[in-house]
Amino acid sequence: MTASAPSPKPIRLPQGFSFSAVAAAIKASGRLDLALVDAVPGTSAAALFTQNLVVAAPVEVGRAHLAETRSRVRAVLVNSGNANCATGEAGLRACQQICQQAASALHIRPEEVFPSSTGIIGVPLPAAKIVAKLPELVRSRESTPAALDRFTQAIMTTDTRQKSASAHFTAAASEVHLLGVAKGSGMIHPQLATMLVYLFTDVAATPAELRQLLRLACDQTFNCISVDGDTSTNDTVLLLASGRSGVRLKDAGIRKEFAVALLNVCHSLAEQIVADGEGVQHVIHLFIEQAKSRQEALQVAQTIARSLLVKTAWAGADPNWGRILAAVGRSGVALNPKHVDIYIAKQMVCNGGTGCEFDEAKAHQDLAKPKCEIRLCLGRGNSAATIITSDLTEEYVRINADYST
Amino acid sequence: MTASAPSPKPIRLPQGFSFSAVAAAIKASGRLDLALVDAVPGTSAAALFTQNLVVAAPVEVGRAHLAETRSRVRAVLVNSGNANCATGEAGLRACQQICQQAASALHIRPEEVFPSSTGIIGVPLPAAKIVAKLPELVRSRESTPAALDRFTQAIMTTDTRQKSASAHFTAAASEVHLLGVAKGSGMIHPQLATMLVYLFTDVAATPAELRQLLRLACDQTFNCISVDGDTSTNDTVLLLASGRSGVRLKDAGIRKEFAVALLNVCHSLAEQIVADGEGVQHVIHLFIEQAKSRQEALQVAQTIARSLLVKTAWAGADPNWGRILAAVGRSGVALNPKHVDIYIAKQMVCNGGTGCEFDEAKAHQDLAKPKCEIRLCLGRGNSAATIITSDLTEEYVRINADYST
Repeated sequence: MTASAPSPKPIRLPQGFSFSAVAAAIKASGRLDLALVDAVPGTSAAALFTQNLVVAAPVEVGRAHLAETRSRVRAVLVNSGNANCATGEAGLRACQQICQQAASALHIRPEEVFPSSTGIIGVPLPAAKIVAKLPELVRSRESTPAALDRFTQAIMTTDTRQKSASAHFTAAASEVHLLGVAKGSGMIHPQLATMLVYLFTDVAATPAELRQLLRLACDQTFNCISVDGDTSTNDTVLLLASGRSGVRLKDAGIRKEFAVALLNVCHSLAEQIVADGEGVQHVIHLFIEQAKSRQEALQVAQTIARSLLVKTAWAGADPNWGRILAAVGRSGVALNPKHVDIYIAKQMVCNGGTGCEFDEAKAHQDLAKPKCEIRLCLGRGNSAATIITSDLTEEYVRINADYST
Repeated sequence: MTASAPSPKPIRLPQGFSFSAVAAAIKASGRLDLALVDAVPGTSAAALFTQNLVVAAPVEVGRAHLAETRSRVRAVLVNSGNANCATGEAGLRACQQICQQAASALHIRPEEVFPSSTGIIGVPLPAAKIVAKLPELVRSRESTPAALDRFTQAIMTTDTRQKSASAHFTAAASEVHLLGVAKGSGMIHPQLATMLVYLFTDVAATPAELRQLLRLACDQTFNCISVDGDTSTNDTVLLLASGRSGVRLKDAGIRKEFAVALLNVCHSLAEQIVADGEGVQHVIHLFIEQAKSRQEALQVAQTIARSLLVKTAWAGADPNWGRILAAVGRSGVALNPKHVDIYIAKQMVCNGGTGCEFDEAKAHQDLAKPKCEIRLCLGRGNSAATIITSDLTEEYVRINADYST
């Protein structure tokens, strides 16, 4: 099994899917902004959505459609340039309308269309523009890397790079393919643009089987990235399985192999998302060890990863461990600061809550690299958690403070 | 009663206190960095400290001293330029040493000295430099506005302005004075520099009476400012009452009048702290109304006030209410977003969770002012809370990312 990370054009497409994208003038730039995936009959689905109580219309509609079809999906319709969020009843109707029209063009049922939107919020979705482009969108779909490439471009908003990852493995005589594409950034986007992740495989699996594996993989990847807390109203991760490889997930040995492939693809996409975060200069892999529970380790990790003081220090490659220790101290975990050790790359910089001698120039150099590891030992137990996070730069503020509405 | 806010030199000093400050070369800049308050015998004290589990040596020592004297304080010894935090046992001994030496010079007991430190963390406190300057510090103390002015300067770190506020009222034939000085910013400082607040009054009161009033005032002021979560390891609010006005807090009508004076002085200092926050361009008064409880209103307010997306939008004076609504949606309060209204200054911008028409240019102008009000109605109950917070600017990141250790 191989997981190829920053390959914009993965060669092996899972069987059973075709892709297309067009420019529908939703984005002012005139770039690709409307994308379609067409899936063969019998395709199973599993989806995870934002935990935010404020959810966009496509999230509401997508949830309802999955419930109605018992998680069978025949098409995914994505637009960028407009999030269709905080748009009230009119937003729901606009979403339903484009699903109906797409279904009609594809000769499937409306509830078999899974919608996504990403972009500005509070602005009515230009449904007429979308409907006008559906014939071209449907007509141009292809099972080719070029079509996938256009799909991946069309879902981007402030992303500076396309994000995809793939894996495959051989079972008996057949090959199983897994392909993932994503948009979004570990740091938050202007106008609440969103993390959207689509995973396609030709393994044969039930929705229940997919759901279980997707949740496991997400908990260790997309739920463990930067997370400055500004969760989007549209975040969606969708896994589709066409079954066209002929290999069944429940066959001996397949489940484990597929789970590893899924984890690797999700991990690669998650890391690509953080690395493409707005203004991000440094990706930090934050390891919290010796916690009493994974939950506790995550709580400490999240507090550090959200701290403005810590994130700005990282922007300056400043080995200021005192800011990290202070974040630990307010994490809500009732730990003893005198048992906390902190490492930057391989160097111990804080021993039992007190500063120790270390090569500061070396620590600065390590933090100045595009990727650096920081490790904390809490001295409380045997649980651990990892978060992939980033620094906070002036560039980030510039992008997000830009008055553009 | 009058509360004069940004007056750097309040004229009326409470009786019973004298002030001094010297340059002890703790700050590299050579500025004033060591300050003393001398209080008459019988002075009562009440103090509140940081909630962070990681606490600096002076916080530990100050707490212990108050316990030993049952909250009687004769001197306050403050240094800036070094926080004496994460300095282990050596840091505790250094703090005890300077208290002992100061006590000896003032002919009082060491536990009657209340220590504070603010500045860089993880660096040993230069106790010898402090001890060498104690004779000059003790000798030069005076009950004059000029001496108070030097005290206020000496406790500053990255502050750009001195912060003080005062109030007085007449009871029978006597005047009661209240004076507060502060350092720090609503946004967090490099090297975890700290919020320190000292309040002096000549009313006669027991420590228990002071403690109750101080907690009430702090809950509505210092605990309701920006609070990006990076609580310092040294935060301290100290209230001292000399009793020299001859007016007793327990006399008829005095408690209420004093409580109002204390609230006004604390409110003024809190607002000055936010306005002087690093890189702050806009102070935002955030009102959360129609909550089920004050706790719930505070939870929503804090989530908004900590959101990077919201704070960067404010930096651009961008009336992007969608970011505020999304922060509400992840606040942890199980509210219905469809009942949420949002106002910028006097204009409604979101009605029942959906955008409504408003004068965007006007909203932009309102947000571009140095001070703006934002109001949310949650539609759940009758409780409310207010937070004074600020925008997040490139200047903030520049200051905090500057690699200076």
